[in-house]
Amino acid sequence: MQEHNLVLELHGESPSTPTGPGSNITILNAEEAFLPTLHSLHAAFPRLRIVLEHCTTAAAVAAVRACGPTVAATITAHHLVLTVDDWAADPFSFCKPVAKLPADRRALLSAVVGGESKFFYGSDSAPHPVGAKRGGEGGKGKTAAGCFTQAHGPGIVVGAVERAVEKGWVTESEVEKEKLAAFLSKNGRQFYGLPENAERGIVLEKKGEKIPESLKSADGSVEVVHFGRGEEVWSARWA
Amino acid sequence: MQEHNLVLELHGESPSTPTGPGSNITILNAEEAFLPTLHSLHAAFPRLRIVLEHCTTAAAVAAVRACGPTVAATITAHHLVLTVDDWAADPFSFCKPVAKLPADRRALLSAVVGGESKFFYGSDSAPHPVGAKRGGEGGKGKTAAGCFTQAHGPGIVVGAVERAVEKGWVTESEVEKEKLAAFLSKNGRQFYGLPENAERGIVLEKKGEKIPESLKSADGSVEVVHFGRGEEVWSARWA
Repeated sequence: MQEHNLVLELHGESPSTPTGPGSNITILNAEEAFLPTLHSLHAAFPRLRIVLEHCTTAAAVAAVRACGPTVAATITAHHLVLTVDDWAADPFSFCKPVAKLPADRRALLSAVVGGESKFFYGSDSAPHPVGAKRGGEGGKGKTAAGCFTQAHGPGIVVGAVERAVEKGWVTESEVEKEKLAAFLSKNGRQFYGLPENAERGIVLEKKGEKIPESLKSADGSVEVVHFGRGEEVWSARWA
Repeated sequence: MQEHNLVLELHGESPSTPTGPGSNITILNAEEAFLPTLHSLHAAFPRLRIVLEHCTTAAAVAAVRACGPTVAATITAHHLVLTVDDWAADPFSFCKPVAKLPADRRALLSAVVGGESKFFYGSDSAPHPVGAKRGGEGGKGKTAAGCFTQAHGPGIVVGAVERAVEKGWVTESEVEKEKLAAFLSKNGRQFYGLPENAERGIVLEKKGEKIPESLKSADGSVEVVHFGRGEEVWSARWA
């Protein structure tokens, strides 16, 4: 892949092995347990571009920062909003990697506002039908993992940053429009070697829009529940 | 309460405060965060009998051990089976306190087989209707917390110990019938000052019984899904 200039995109989690004697890997520390592998891949192939997709922990943010410029990470909208307390009782907020602790969320928010070129938006939006989120046929199976953020992702990101300022996790002076724009739409293109799209862009505006309950297919047979249903969100339009 | 010889039964968790600046209390460490309060209650009222109900962590087991004989703890059947990986995608395994890490489960199993008089069975069985486990009316609300183990609790406990031996978490020589019987039906009575029931008891037998899917009301209008549905379980009968 390095030789052919391909990009390695990783879902970076070590397999959970809670049944092994002495083993303690679960969905909570599976990402952190993978980071030594990320470092060894980068050391073996320093020119290989690697993206640690949908990273969720302070440890992952630090690990990606510690690598050279060929290693980047994406951050989703929902991981800027959630912690473990939010998804435990809500299947529509359950995703993999699972959202972690408040300190991890703060680290992700810092990476978003920091303007570093190696962090950029990746939605990982998952349009599972409502039934799959509620245990499949008969409702007694497993909850499908994933959050459906597609229609409102950038607005949710900006709303999360706004809330972080309100909560004091990020200071207002740290937040710059240019850096947020870089996170949402420039750093990724740059990493992938794509030209900037100077003609069109998304404009985000706060005008009281609320995320609807769900999206339905034309004949109503498929329903997908929006992440953040009922919450106010920044509106997005093409300009 | 101490003066009147009442028993203080605690659901021991500090409130989650993931939104506070710098705070990191979540459903994962809320029990451990409560333990200093347990210690201070015990120090202030050393003769007050306290039960730390449905304890879930190695830290709680150690804290209860470190207190005097007036402090005890109950352990549920489901916390001997589950870790965080099991309930994340299964509403019927989601309860509060949530099941924690493999090391915590091993600590609970050690307390069960240890025969110490301050640990005893408490089911915390919660017969939530299937709809409440799947988000209430319309299915988009929160998942009700609780596992329904009522009909098979002691069998699930013994099955969990059997599995712990198979996995090497507990050695076979540690498991004694008398100690398991004490955990299930003697230590609790003793702590509460109730006489032993010498006339009747539960006999547990392994004969291939499987836990059914659910329990329904006579008219079928209420359905409660069994914890461990479809799994083989030790059978219980009165003798």
